[in-house]
Amino acid sequence: MPHYRAPVEDTLFLLGDVLGFHARDNLAGFSDAAPDVVEAVLREGAKLAEEVLAPVNQTGDREGCRRNPDGSVTTPAGFKAAYDAYAQGGWMGLSVPEEFGGQGLPQTLNTAIQEFASGANLALGMYPGLTQGAIAALLVHGSAEQKARFIPKMVAGTWTGTMNLTEPHCGTDLGLLKTKAVPNGDGSYAITGTKIFISAGEHDLAENIVHLVIARIEGAPAGTKGISLFVVPKFLVGEDGALGPRNGVSCGSLEHKMGIHGNATCVMNYDGATGWLVGEANRGLNAMFVMMNEARLAVGVQGLGQSEVAYQNAVAYARDRLQGRALTGAKAPDKPADPILVHPDVRRTLMQIRAFNEAARALVLWTALQSDILHRSEDAGERRTADDHMGLMTPVVKGVLTDRGFANAVEAQQMFGGHGYVEEWGMSQFVRDARIAMIYEGANGIQAMDLVGRKLPKDGGRAMMAFLGEVQTFLKDHGEDADMAAFVKPLGAAVNDLQGATMWFMQNAMAKPDNAGAGATDYMHLLGLVALGYMWARIAKAALARKAAGEEPARWDAKLVTGRFFMDRSLPETGLRLARIKAGADTTMALAAEAF
Amino acid sequence: MPHYRAPVEDTLFLLGDVLGFHARDNLAGFSDAAPDVVEAVLREGAKLAEEVLAPVNQTGDREGCRRNPDGSVTTPAGFKAAYDAYAQGGWMGLSVPEEFGGQGLPQTLNTAIQEFASGANLALGMYPGLTQGAIAALLVHGSAEQKARFIPKMVAGTWTGTMNLTEPHCGTDLGLLKTKAVPNGDGSYAITGTKIFISAGEHDLAENIVHLVIARIEGAPAGTKGISLFVVPKFLVGEDGALGPRNGVSCGSLEHKMGIHGNATCVMNYDGATGWLVGEANRGLNAMFVMMNEARLAVGVQGLGQSEVAYQNAVAYARDRLQGRALTGAKAPDKPADPILVHPDVRRTLMQIRAFNEAARALVLWTALQSDILHRSEDAGERRTADDHMGLMTPVVKGVLTDRGFANAVEAQQMFGGHGYVEEWGMSQFVRDARIAMIYEGANGIQAMDLVGRKLPKDGGRAMMAFLGEVQTFLKDHGEDADMAAFVKPLGAAVNDLQGATMWFMQNAMAKPDNAGAGATDYMHLLGLVALGYMWARIAKAALARKAAGEEPARWDAKLVTGRFFMDRSLPETGLRLARIKAGADTTMALAAEAF
Repeated sequence: MPHYRAPVEDTLFLLGDVLGFHARDNLAGFSDAAPDVVEAVLREGAKLAEEVLAPVNQTGDREGCRRNPDGSVTTPAGFKAAYDAYAQGGWMGLSVPEEFGGQGLPQTLNTAIQEFASGANLALGMYPGLTQGAIAALLVHGSAEQKARFIPKMVAGTWTGTMNLTEPHCGTDLGLLKTKAVPNGDGSYAITGTKIFISAGEHDLAENIVHLVIARIEGAPAGTKGISLFVVPKFLVGEDGALGPRNGVSCGSLEHKMGIHGNATCVMNYDGATGWLVGEANRGLNAMFVMMNEARLAVGVQGLGQSEVAYQNAVAYARDRLQGRALTGAKAPDKPADPILVHPDVRRTLMQIRAFNEAARALVLWTALQSDILHRSEDAGERRTADDHMGLMTPVVKGVLTDRGFANAVEAQQMFGGHGYVEEWGMSQFVRDARIAMIYEGANGIQAMDLVGRKLPKDGGRAMMAFLGEVQTFLKDHGEDADMAAFVKPLGAAVNDLQGATMWFMQNAMAKPDNAGAGATDYMHLLGLVALGYMWARIAKAALARKAAGEEPARWDAKLVTGRFFMDRSLPETGLRLARIKAGADTTMALAAEAF
Repeated sequence: MPHYRAPVEDTLFLLGDVLGFHARDNLAGFSDAAPDVVEAVLREGAKLAEEVLAPVNQTGDREGCRRNPDGSVTTPAGFKAAYDAYAQGGWMGLSVPEEFGGQGLPQTLNTAIQEFASGANLALGMYPGLTQGAIAALLVHGSAEQKARFIPKMVAGTWTGTMNLTEPHCGTDLGLLKTKAVPNGDGSYAITGTKIFISAGEHDLAENIVHLVIARIEGAPAGTKGISLFVVPKFLVGEDGALGPRNGVSCGSLEHKMGIHGNATCVMNYDGATGWLVGEANRGLNAMFVMMNEARLAVGVQGLGQSEVAYQNAVAYARDRLQGRALTGAKAPDKPADPILVHPDVRRTLMQIRAFNEAARALVLWTALQSDILHRSEDAGERRTADDHMGLMTPVVKGVLTDRGFANAVEAQQMFGGHGYVEEWGMSQFVRDARIAMIYEGANGIQAMDLVGRKLPKDGGRAMMAFLGEVQTFLKDHGEDADMAAFVKPLGAAVNDLQGATMWFMQNAMAKPDNAGAGATDYMHLLGLVALGYMWARIAKAALARKAAGEEPARWDAKLVTGRFFMDRSLPETGLRLARIKAGADTTMALAAEAF
């Protein structure tokens, strides 16, 4: 059976040594997150992930969810108990304000726990993950009454949440949505329509499900400007918070999916269901975007989580499996063959995944820290910078970490040879599960378009200039540091490629937007590579300091080697990305539609 | 339901215009393959693939194979009828000599049909595919009596074939195998052992199954030098060819796999089964290599087949799915949204797959033609050159076409958004099925090691020098041709990268073999890119000629645009591959085993 071990030590190092987490105690909640608290939270979270969530991952995949004739949905054996442990441990509200029953701790910590949960059991982790997304949307856009009614129950895990956007004929292009909301005259609305791909839409883990649903109020404008957000509980909720009658919303069927079998992906039928407006009428997409940004970061984290668990299992297999001899002579002459870990191509694969994971974890935590600054700082300038960073990096974290996370799961599966293709070993599940993260919350091509079309040009390119400025300052500050040369030089070349691509867009995409569209995915990956390379440079600096301090030298040597591998072998991809971008849209767009 | 259309027109163009197939009538069987015969064969094969094999692809995936309590295996509904149509159409023996009931046509044609079958229904196509591999091994190494006894029945499809190599503790490292062969005293052997991952090991499609099994004769040397090949029929065969009693071989269980559910992947238990030596004792691995080379090419073709069918379905979806508007203004203003085919990132994806498929098809057919030359030419020099080409390109076709074929299936799936993740649409199956091709017949890392460690240095690098020489001659011959400049220039740069990498290995891998191991996969892809780029250059030349002749100008314009897309966007990857190779083995091998 596959195993999972949460990367607690690495997370502690990143927070403390690389990202200056503990220097941020100007932010609300951070003073409660002293080093010993952070360590205790991470160790408890790790225990939950390793001992509660991971053991039902493979069984959940095999059994899947079942829709019963009455429309109820049964989750796989063991999911309810694991979910209860998650909820009762207080994990749902880790970073939710204390007034709603949460612990008010930094979102950065919650993000670390999300990685653990995603690595241990992606399908199960989605139930609380979506609940946290719904809480985030209600916190920002819900009325005081809505917050009081729904959030504490969701924090307690007694109720879960969902987001209902997609319809059969519209996913990306939500302006086409048809679900209708008709005023009931009492302040509520009757919601009618069909939503598809609703994760956790129906299940047996909680007493109630709080659906956040976008719909068009009768008479509202067509397109995205006529979309409103509603809260539609599965069971109506009385003034006292007690559950009332069943609402007119039900699960029509479950999708048969490639993976995440333990998560119920539902077709949800709204048949005059009673809902209440969240935020302003016709501004529903804005409200939903809050939830989507949270969700996009969380999905990026899923890519990392699956990459990490796949890596760990590939390493274990590479140590155990005896096959062939090292090119440089037998390494285990007493055994019939050497462990395959001696083979350079196996190591190349493992190093590549490892070098990605460690930098991706830094990027995720760095971005989560910006989210905390954005929501908790009292300094407007600091908030603005953090907001810029979030805008720029959200599509990168979502798109790059899930593309690469999936590819890494595939590479890790490859280490197993034929055994990787057999479900028993669990590697196929990591691949099948990781695949969804490239798709949901905006397919990765949409992330790329969001980055290039919206985030990059926004405010005259301020966010990108700030990022480039930060990296260049780092390069200048460490330009004379011989120990850092192996990081500074390749990062400098990569930044040049990023600047070249940005410049090329400025010169070629204004007049011809297809040039931006044709290069968008390459640009997203280019920026992702530079961001990961920058993370490695900062990690290296911190590792050198720890090494100089004389503790655990082998640990820091391993860090530095892994970082140099990234600089030597992964980062040069920026040149290819730049070349593709500069090829422009001509051959991409030239073919007549009928010629495909 | 997904659809499949066999690429008949493109295959005809490649054979006739690009590869000079019809100029090879010095080869046995080619004079029977006049243009009208080739066209008729391809059209019939296409019909079989489209109308017989494809319709049971998705149902076969859903139903899978079932092992019954008596050890028999039931294939999915419809598989038997489809298999019968395949067998009765004479497809099994298309390129088998007429004396054994075959049609003696070129293997090149058979390879084209293999692509059609692999695209239409990979799981089903494997049953005849393995049979053809077994026939190939018997043709080369079987005794006259074995050939007469087994091949005609296999050609008729009445019996199928398998190859039994892998055991639980050994896949790549066959020297570790434990299956034993004990002489019975009558010329036969008693075979005892367990083989795993045996595709088509047991099923209900044919009367008998001819297992080719490697085992160690009692007292034979340890390692690969003590391995012999045996033929072990499921039912013993009398002198008259009639089926006798059941042999001591049975299917112990079926693997639960990620994909190719319609193919029975068996654990095969040999319990004193009666077998007969094929070829010389202790030379079994050599005999098996014949089968493995055929099989490796066929697996590369599977990668192409899955890439093609995934592409076709993604195009159909991109035409139908309305979502968003073109960046340059509405293209279907009468509809609620434009088809997603208008979006540059969608086109980029489709062009990338298409540009690969068309060149990969050329590479496959070119290599198959070398196989025909190798086996049918009377000119020793020509045979030697063809043999060199086969040795060099077999790992490339297997490794690169399956890596890229899988990646393309994933990219095509991505076009469907959430629908791609739902089994109903069929895209998940293409991804799951395509995944196996990277693994079996030697995982792709093994292909890379075979290329770099064996094929490249063999005979002083003669094969690579011949390939480079051929490409450089082409570049020189077309260096002044303005119409070819868009192909010649990028191909020249890519060839430089390949030469640089080859030189680097010569200088750095002799003393330190890990430098070759760490760069092997990148080298395999680098050579693959150059080979595909060379195919595009030759295709472009032929397309320019057809365009100049004035026929179907739109078709040839599309060809040329697709080729330029490859040169602009795919081929520059050679630079990245070279950079990785030159990074050497240092960071790859530096980490202590316990640090992973």
